[in-house]
Amino acid sequence: MPAFVNHAQESNVKILSTNGALTPPDGKPLADTRIVPEAPAEPYLRIVPLGGCSEIGRNMTVIETNDDIVVVDCGLMFPDEEMFGVDIVISDFSYLREREEKLRGLLVTHGHEDHIGGIPYFLREFPQVPVIGTALSLALVKAKFREHKVGDVELRVVAPSEVVTLGGIRAEFVHMTHSLAGACSLAISTPLGLVFHTGDFKFDQTPLDGRPADFAAIARYGSQGVLCLLSDSTNAERPGHTPSERTVSEAFSNIFARARGRIIVASFASNVPRIQQVADHALRFGRRMAFLGRSLQNVVHFATELGYLRLSQDRIIRIEDVDSYPPEEVVIMTTGSQGEPMSALTRMSLREHPKAKIVPGDTVVISATPIPGNEKSVSKTINNLYRLGAHVFHGAGAHVSGHGSQEELLLMLNLVRPKYFIPVHGEYRMLVSHARLAERAGVAAGNAFVVENGDVVEFTAGEAGKVGKTYGGNVLVDGSGVGDVGAAVLRDRRLLSSDGIVMIVVSIDAEDSRVVAGPDVMTKGVFYVPESDELLEDLHAAADEALATCSVDGMGDAQSVRERLRESISRLVYERTRRRPVVVPVVMEV
Amino acid sequence: MPAFVNHAQESNVKILSTNGALTPPDGKPLADTRIVPEAPAEPYLRIVPLGGCSEIGRNMTVIETNDDIVVVDCGLMFPDEEMFGVDIVISDFSYLREREEKLRGLLVTHGHEDHIGGIPYFLREFPQVPVIGTALSLALVKAKFREHKVGDVELRVVAPSEVVTLGGIRAEFVHMTHSLAGACSLAISTPLGLVFHTGDFKFDQTPLDGRPADFAAIARYGSQGVLCLLSDSTNAERPGHTPSERTVSEAFSNIFARARGRIIVASFASNVPRIQQVADHALRFGRRMAFLGRSLQNVVHFATELGYLRLSQDRIIRIEDVDSYPPEEVVIMTTGSQGEPMSALTRMSLREHPKAKIVPGDTVVISATPIPGNEKSVSKTINNLYRLGAHVFHGAGAHVSGHGSQEELLLMLNLVRPKYFIPVHGEYRMLVSHARLAERAGVAAGNAFVVENGDVVEFTAGEAGKVGKTYGGNVLVDGSGVGDVGAAVLRDRRLLSSDGIVMIVVSIDAEDSRVVAGPDVMTKGVFYVPESDELLEDLHAAADEALATCSVDGMGDAQSVRERLRESISRLVYERTRRRPVVVPVVMEV
Repeated sequence: MPAFVNHAQESNVKILSTNGALTPPDGKPLADTRIVPEAPAEPYLRIVPLGGCSEIGRNMTVIETNDDIVVVDCGLMFPDEEMFGVDIVISDFSYLREREEKLRGLLVTHGHEDHIGGIPYFLREFPQVPVIGTALSLALVKAKFREHKVGDVELRVVAPSEVVTLGGIRAEFVHMTHSLAGACSLAISTPLGLVFHTGDFKFDQTPLDGRPADFAAIARYGSQGVLCLLSDSTNAERPGHTPSERTVSEAFSNIFARARGRIIVASFASNVPRIQQVADHALRFGRRMAFLGRSLQNVVHFATELGYLRLSQDRIIRIEDVDSYPPEEVVIMTTGSQGEPMSALTRMSLREHPKAKIVPGDTVVISATPIPGNEKSVSKTINNLYRLGAHVFHGAGAHVSGHGSQEELLLMLNLVRPKYFIPVHGEYRMLVSHARLAERAGVAAGNAFVVENGDVVEFTAGEAGKVGKTYGGNVLVDGSGVGDVGAAVLRDRRLLSSDGIVMIVVSIDAEDSRVVAGPDVMTKGVFYVPESDELLEDLHAAADEALATCSVDGMGDAQSVRERLRESISRLVYERTRRRPVVVPVVMEV
Repeated sequence: MPAFVNHAQESNVKILSTNGALTPPDGKPLADTRIVPEAPAEPYLRIVPLGGCSEIGRNMTVIETNDDIVVVDCGLMFPDEEMFGVDIVISDFSYLREREEKLRGLLVTHGHEDHIGGIPYFLREFPQVPVIGTALSLALVKAKFREHKVGDVELRVVAPSEVVTLGGIRAEFVHMTHSLAGACSLAISTPLGLVFHTGDFKFDQTPLDGRPADFAAIARYGSQGVLCLLSDSTNAERPGHTPSERTVSEAFSNIFARARGRIIVASFASNVPRIQQVADHALRFGRRMAFLGRSLQNVVHFATELGYLRLSQDRIIRIEDVDSYPPEEVVIMTTGSQGEPMSALTRMSLREHPKAKIVPGDTVVISATPIPGNEKSVSKTINNLYRLGAHVFHGAGAHVSGHGSQEELLLMLNLVRPKYFIPVHGEYRMLVSHARLAERAGVAAGNAFVVENGDVVEFTAGEAGKVGKTYGGNVLVDGSGVGDVGAAVLRDRRLLSSDGIVMIVVSIDAEDSRVVAGPDVMTKGVFYVPESDELLEDLHAAADEALATCSVDGMGDAQSVRERLRESISRLVYERTRRRPVVVPVVMEV
């Protein structure tokens, strides 16, 4: 086993990572460090995060023994601003592809996109693998199948406390509290010991549905002995305790008591507890409730059917009928809390939504915090809502996080009392903070591993540590293409986005070195063409001149003609505009 | 005078705005609402914000009387992620261009980029106009001149409390506290009354240099009577009081006491009080100090020379010599607190800085908060610093804002006691919050005007209100081009960035409708070419087929050949990839 590299300050936290991204932001491919050693002959357990370790999103963890593999979650991540044109980001399945015969099941902790969004792509490759989770989680998975044309697959619904057997691995779904109903931790028994994976969680002691986390089950596993805990690190930098969903009530009561016009609440479609809060307040304050947005209507439908959501059906109205009620008797629940361009709230804020308009007197509640990277678009939406005369509540009070803060993470550690600890679901800094917490909670010095996507952590009877590295990078989904957009394509898109493109096209007679048509100069995104006649003429002249020089030297070699055109045009554009567009010379030999 | 449109809730705040952006994010030009009525014959005062009203950045305000115009500040703004390839954003000078003969002076409140960054562009058009400000402000202005090749212009240095006369307008520079030395408010006397423009400010009661704001002067103007107050709205949504710069001391003392290796502090280059803090701590804790980064070294040079910064010169070392001192005796001050790609700290975090490397044991202090939109890049930098083994302090304690919070804004209102109020320097939501504060502080209902860039507010003996709208939009600077990148170019860049470009080039013989060369198909940024042979072949075949159809119909019309190629190639690319690249067909007639 290789020696540990210990970077972390003021603790013995083991930093086992190397960055596994296949498409790093700078476009330079990283050195290939993917080496996975042969599995040992003795009993072993491997834990391999394929996503979510040093990022927020696309959570996915492989649990592997000598004979079996189970996968926990398969999420998606939204592209950052450097992934031009990319729709979503999923994990690299190479490690599973090479071990497909051992694949026994995909366990789903809960139905958020960053835990289930990659499942259609997973099932495209591994349709034989059963997907196992609670009813709401699987309803949300199933909702994706039509769009993705997923065929015949096995969805196995389990209840909390139920145990599933997958080859030599057994897994209990342990009821947990989070910002979505049906969330579970997983207690995964392997021949080498127990792995406890928290999934996303908070310890809400006063949840709306009256069902706090299954402390008894967690504590029972803790006393029996847990080999390794994997725990949600989203709020590992946040001291104290995340407030209960119930505390949102107070903010909503104030808002509902004061609002004189309509109330519009934007949240995540999947936030079933929040929908319940709004519905309860609507009932209490004599308002009717409408749901705007397909994804939200889907969730309401499933969650109601499965008993996670209790609505007074006679108080629900269709969004089309909203205008037939007095404004002070209406609540509209919708999506768009992140300022997403196509979401209902964003379109309303721009007066572009066909079904709903903001009018002066409306009260808009943004019941979510911006995901990192979305701050500016959320802020734009808020400004536009103000412009339309709405009163806007956002942030403090009207939202609580679904992820436990430091005191809850410590409580989880003290309940589970693991020998080893791997922080998951978080950026690098959060993983390091969480590993430090683990040491404070008694995990032995050196037994808290900070790993990144693709790191292979191996446990045998005597040892534990990182033994190798597999493909842990981003797979970019763009349109129908999965993984065909990589560093090279993104580099081109970045260059095009920054200064546009210039094309110079010329036809030459290959035999007598004569220009027979062109040169034509075309530009896209470099400068405003209708006002750039002079510059275009100069570009034309420069191309003529470059061709004339070539002509003297002999036009035979199209490659060198192209080079000369490229050089001459690039230089002139830079001199005149200080811009560096992509320059594409095309020489056609007639 | 047109009727006011009153959108705001729960107050009589007058919303006078229409969005003045020339290049709105959606690429659609807004309806032209620019109508500025003839100036009245009677004495009048016009206040026209050309930047900073409903945005953070490019602050610029026009103060106009019958005979004279003075301009307060001329800043820049950094482009948002939708302004592809744009370097900076400045204000539209059209209103001034049309009234150039009245232009008497440009008054600079302080030397931050969002107040001075547009001055070189301003002077390019109006070189005859004197630029007036305190010594440090003008030193920072002058530092830009070499890069911008600004020639002979008048920079008039004033001391706080000094009064300048500009035609019929007189302006006193009133000493103020902010996160940069030499900051002033402006008390501008016009024939119609006094305009008090705060510039950026906080009321730091215990500033490091022992010089709190000139309360006496502010109060004196307040008792004499102020027609209109324009006040900094950056923190108008933040309750309470912004802590004193001195409170940062405590955080720094803790950090310096605990750090065992080098300390690296990143802040804004212009934050002179922060540089002083770090220097004081270096002295106290026996560390030598090095400055990394040209802009920072510039500021240190000017600020020291002008007496704003007091350094023990024998404790300053060159960045090149840092390694000859033990790590525990070194502090490096640098830039990059915003995760800017080319900044020193970002490059250090990526191991790309030639002069400075992060080593395990380093303590990095990010002494600034992320500007909205920069959160993600700051977070990336922090993660990368952790990866290199550094300990990172950011946010709480090690930074305080330079802008006053609600209690300070209320104090300013109560000191100045204006008849009318215009909130400036802030996003729309902040302006609305600030206007509400003004009403709470006694500004008469309806006398607090929320205006946006380009709105023309006019005061005469009897009346006050918005009378028109001038060009208030963004002027985009890209390379050496000022204003030639607009909605059309940005739209092309956005399309190119999202799905790339496909070019199809063919030469036809115009006479006998025969293809003589091509079709050639080239792509950039659509898919990964080396692995797309099949698709490229199919595109080629589709182009051949489209040409064959044309051929039957007669190849005479190049335009219709182009259309057929575009349509056929667009359709095939979309069918196969679900992407919509820009498709450029080029037909050369030989």
